[in-house]
Amino acid sequence: MKANFDVILAYNKPRAEAFLSDIEGKNPLFIATIATTETGKIPGLSAAGQNPDFTDFTPPADAELLLLGKCKSIQGVPITPDGIPTPGLISMSALRLADIPVVIANAGCKVKPQVPFIDLGGNSGRDIRTGSSVDNVEEVIERAKVAGKQFAKTSGYLVISESIPGGTTTALGLLSALGINAAGKVSSTLSLNPHNLKVDVVQAGLRAAGEKFGSLNSNPLKAVSCVGDPMMPALAGLVIGAAKHVPVLMAGGTQMTAVLALINALNPEALCNVAIGTTRWVINDVSSDIRGIVCQFCDVPILAADLNFGDSVYPGLKVYETGLVKEGVGAGGASIAAMVKMGGAVNKNLLLKAIERNYSVLMSMK
Amino acid sequence: MKANFDVILAYNKPRAEAFLSDIEGKNPLFIATIATTETGKIPGLSAAGQNPDFTDFTPPADAELLLLGKCKSIQGVPITPDGIPTPGLISMSALRLADIPVVIANAGCKVKPQVPFIDLGGNSGRDIRTGSSVDNVEEVIERAKVAGKQFAKTSGYLVISESIPGGTTTALGLLSALGINAAGKVSSTLSLNPHNLKVDVVQAGLRAAGEKFGSLNSNPLKAVSCVGDPMMPALAGLVIGAAKHVPVLMAGGTQMTAVLALINALNPEALCNVAIGTTRWVINDVSSDIRGIVCQFCDVPILAADLNFGDSVYPGLKVYETGLVKEGVGAGGASIAAMVKMGGAVNKNLLLKAIERNYSVLMSMK
Repeated sequence: MKANFDVILAYNKPRAEAFLSDIEGKNPLFIATIATTETGKIPGLSAAGQNPDFTDFTPPADAELLLLGKCKSIQGVPITPDGIPTPGLISMSALRLADIPVVIANAGCKVKPQVPFIDLGGNSGRDIRTGSSVDNVEEVIERAKVAGKQFAKTSGYLVISESIPGGTTTALGLLSALGINAAGKVSSTLSLNPHNLKVDVVQAGLRAAGEKFGSLNSNPLKAVSCVGDPMMPALAGLVIGAAKHVPVLMAGGTQMTAVLALINALNPEALCNVAIGTTRWVINDVSSDIRGIVCQFCDVPILAADLNFGDSVYPGLKVYETGLVKEGVGAGGASIAAMVKMGGAVNKNLLLKAIERNYSVLMSMK
Repeated sequence: MKANFDVILAYNKPRAEAFLSDIEGKNPLFIATIATTETGKIPGLSAAGQNPDFTDFTPPADAELLLLGKCKSIQGVPITPDGIPTPGLISMSALRLADIPVVIANAGCKVKPQVPFIDLGGNSGRDIRTGSSVDNVEEVIERAKVAGKQFAKTSGYLVISESIPGGTTTALGLLSALGINAAGKVSSTLSLNPHNLKVDVVQAGLRAAGEKFGSLNSNPLKAVSCVGDPMMPALAGLVIGAAKHVPVLMAGGTQMTAVLALINALNPEALCNVAIGTTRWVINDVSSDIRGIVCQFCDVPILAADLNFGDSVYPGLKVYETGLVKEGVGAGGASIAAMVKMGGAVNKNLLLKAIERNYSVLMSMK
């Protein structure tokens, strides 16, 4: 047990501890995989944007925030309808504290970020209720594998994150198509998790595709193309390409379980070199169950950054403790990577101070 | 003097030697900056493609060759009208021998490569005879700086190369607009260098833009947008962003002198951490004069891979000794990086053997 890091070993403690030891002293590269879908615009599903149409701007704005320390595609930073700032603020603060390099992988955004990004040949996703939500699944996976392999050569390990509004609903979609029971278990940016709406949307998608729970368990590519999102093939390909060579921390909440399931179906040996890195807010969330999804098909460990904003002087940050937002843009994984890279010189208190400093600067720029 | 590397210190020997010492023991990242222009299609200017229209496919095919070991956008590999294979074959062989990671930066290609690439926000270039050849010059430079800074954090040094047919003519264009005398000094893929045609094309471009020799020497961005190409702002931005943090080997022939001139005009201090890496064929070329361009405005050292294909069993490679092709896709810089990374375990003979092996495999795939 690494008592000197503010990291919780949340699932499969022996492998979680081994993963943590393995990445100590290594230089990480952080890859943010961004995409948008029409699914994210279904009213009531996601809070990752001021209003549903705004979700097209959230991932590119997150990408800009990570690379530039401010957004270009929007004024200020992405916020929820209640004004809560994007978890990208946490990621950006952590990555800067530890001087961790960042690459943006565009898996399919309607609005392109105004910063350099890797194009993986994907398009923005359609509403999964069409039963045909993602293009080029196989090609994107192949390209992402090539990129993951090259980036693995540059770094001691990779931290691969996502920013895709509505992503927990498409996660439920893919998991359901693959026969993994995730209804009531996926997380939400909202404090009141709209589980019934998510289930209805996924059922509609499976019906439209002529499929049902588990019917695509031997056809994972089709499962993604029917009821998944564009982030999934990109992130899975990056992980598969990299994990043969270096450890990979998959930075996200329950969305990552869908990517894990996809990797498990395509290339299960990649999972030997992988962990999920998330936040305390996800693993302590009573309205979702990340462990309960993962344990159905693999023993990939889960690490969680022990973030706590309860003492923050800013109400916009303090509110994270009420269960809003919870995770995104690799906030948990970036925090873990920063703490491990800095050998304990960065802890959760220092991180909160940096986040508050950046929050204050960004709010004054609005 | 590093007697154990097959590297010629071709210009500013003290700094060339210091640069070589500086990169020893460091892990490089190779970035190939690709773009296309209508200038490259002017008959008689470039041999970087089977015929002028084919030049749109040469840079994406080179990118695919580097990442996949074979092309997807075309059958076989890019060749000259005479059937001589792309210098990308040299780069690919060198990079694979030394397991050097590769990133493709798309600075503006009409045909997108079917591999992952960094999008820098540029477009394919127009014919410089329009006097308005490149879009978004400033934005591309800014984005490329951001990318260069991030990649510098992942690697001990960067090797940044180009693939752009017709690039020596646009190099003459930019150099002329900046008041650097390069007429008769730029290199060529052809063995008979069409200097008069290049000068005519550049004169037409300057005239169309309402400019003349040296008239844009205090407006380098406009000089690029009038008579340059899309590779220039991308490559210059990558170098400026990276050279503050790590050494940068600019891998190319006389085209790199135009990029050097652009960097010199925008951010001269970046040149302190930079060298040109090219081939013996360029520095020994009697129809061009790379040193005679560089010495007009800076003392950046020139290193040259001491490649010699005279003993090759393949006529398609042997012909490099007659002055065809000479350089491209960072062939010289990749060879230098491979030899230095492998600590002398890779020399020019071993490299030729690897190139012949790959050549034979690729030719049999046609």
